[in-house]
Amino acid sequence: MVSAPGKEHYFLGIDGGGSKCKACIATAEGRVLGTGLAGPANPLHGLKQTLGSIERAARIALQDAGLPSEALQNLVAGVGLAGVNVPDLYRSISEWHHPFDALYLTTDLGIACLGAHSSDDGAVIVVGTGSSGYARVNGVEHLVGGYGFPYGDQGSGAWMGLEAVKAVLMAYDQLGPSTTLTERVEKQLGAKGVEIIGLMSGLPSSEYAKLAPLVFAAAKEGDAVAQKVLAEGGKYISSMAYKLLEFQPGRLALIGGLADPIESWLDPEVLKCLSVPLGTPEEGALLFARNEHLEAHIA
Amino acid sequence: MVSAPGKEHYFLGIDGGGSKCKACIATAEGRVLGTGLAGPANPLHGLKQTLGSIERAARIALQDAGLPSEALQNLVAGVGLAGVNVPDLYRSISEWHHPFDALYLTTDLGIACLGAHSSDDGAVIVVGTGSSGYARVNGVEHLVGGYGFPYGDQGSGAWMGLEAVKAVLMAYDQLGPSTTLTERVEKQLGAKGVEIIGLMSGLPSSEYAKLAPLVFAAAKEGDAVAQKVLAEGGKYISSMAYKLLEFQPGRLALIGGLADPIESWLDPEVLKCLSVPLGTPEEGALLFARNEHLEAHIA
Repeated sequence: MVSAPGKEHYFLGIDGGGSKCKACIATAEGRVLGTGLAGPANPLHGLKQTLGSIERAARIALQDAGLPSEALQNLVAGVGLAGVNVPDLYRSISEWHHPFDALYLTTDLGIACLGAHSSDDGAVIVVGTGSSGYARVNGVEHLVGGYGFPYGDQGSGAWMGLEAVKAVLMAYDQLGPSTTLTERVEKQLGAKGVEIIGLMSGLPSSEYAKLAPLVFAAAKEGDAVAQKVLAEGGKYISSMAYKLLEFQPGRLALIGGLADPIESWLDPEVLKCLSVPLGTPEEGALLFARNEHLEAHIA
Repeated sequence: MVSAPGKEHYFLGIDGGGSKCKACIATAEGRVLGTGLAGPANPLHGLKQTLGSIERAARIALQDAGLPSEALQNLVAGVGLAGVNVPDLYRSISEWHHPFDALYLTTDLGIACLGAHSSDDGAVIVVGTGSSGYARVNGVEHLVGGYGFPYGDQGSGAWMGLEAVKAVLMAYDQLGPSTTLTERVEKQLGAKGVEIIGLMSGLPSSEYAKLAPLVFAAAKEGDAVAQKVLAEGGKYISSMAYKLLEFQPGRLALIGGLADPIESWLDPEVLKCLSVPLGTPEEGALLFARNEHLEAHIA
């Protein structure tokens, strides 16, 4: 899709996630004019909600930029979403009658990598509610982990929360060591003993991830059970890093909500190999939109 | 509730579970006349479905016994269900306008224990889709484990299935050792690689439990990953047994669909302490119905 010549257009970067959708509007030169935040945009959890969140975040960003709502149709969007490496899901979203001038679609990991390195090549490990690894080298993509909760995503916030609940239950039965996680989890949930199960049963990963800060706090104050959880999580993230480095991505960045606190639980060898991320995933989405649009114009 | 004097009545034993509901009809002297099987009856997963399954299983057992459907109102039912140790759930089921002459309600573990020992006192460990421990000593009940999937129920079929999926995903990424569980799980699910995730995502514990036989088969043929899963599961079940033996229950029985295969993974010390179950949970429910009815008549 190519916009009409002479019509002024802006670029829109969208970083869709399981708990929120971030939008960012910039000029063709890359100057950011406004940002927006809306609800969940993980197509694996609901396509309609995802498309609604994208449009909402874009409209909020337009307002923030001081642009009229009609400018929506002048936006060239770069959109990064989980799960669009699955062909069916990619097709469903591609068929969307979107309100923008053009829409270019890629994975959440793709835009995270582009944002972190300002380059197509590179590698990222995202540690937040979930955990996943991605490398792109000479145009070839490699994925590590990121299978989701509760069977994958070791070292992630949701995984830490699940391990915390497990440890608390083992301690209740005196089948595991006692831990200060018990009082911390009980306090945060406002529940005691088996009531915790009633509260957590069937909840999505994002609710488990809310317990992750308790694990870091307990570990910091010397709780051996919490320390063991973080050591195991750190070991997994480190093994992801070694796997990604095998592809020789040039740069490897650790990003996501838990990137900072998990760092001290990684192998010292891994820490030496980490590069500082140059930009955010939504900035990566902007860059992706501009690159794709340029290519479409040249083609 | 007391049945009208002179009216002939039969006893109904109900063992409600997460995947099926078993019914058993017997005379006042304990002679079994017929049995019935219906769908899920776990009130934690749905009250209406549970009550429907109980009535359905009872009607099938009546047919099997060659009794007319009107005999339903002459049945004195003993019903064992998960979760009825939670007061709210106990009350909800007690308020049911059931079609029987009388209904006496207790936990699934209570009837399992009564069935296994033909006595109020004793202890059981149930290992099937889930895992849980129960002891009753001098009228005092003790519970160990049984918190549910995915945070509890270590050593259970659902837990084994989850550990199998985890191991397969770790092997895909070459972050864990390769295992024959990969081809076994792929074959059973009719899916390859990441497709497994699409199939298992959000499924209930009963679907994970269907993978447990693969873990036993792989372990038997020397697969180290499967052996490690079963060793860990066996260690947990053993620790449950030690905990229950602390209450000096007299007899401890291991029951449930995976009781036989898990035995060889338990501590030899635990094996020495196990007693053969004398009867099934539905036979325990029959006994419970007769005991409670007798008590109600005496009172």
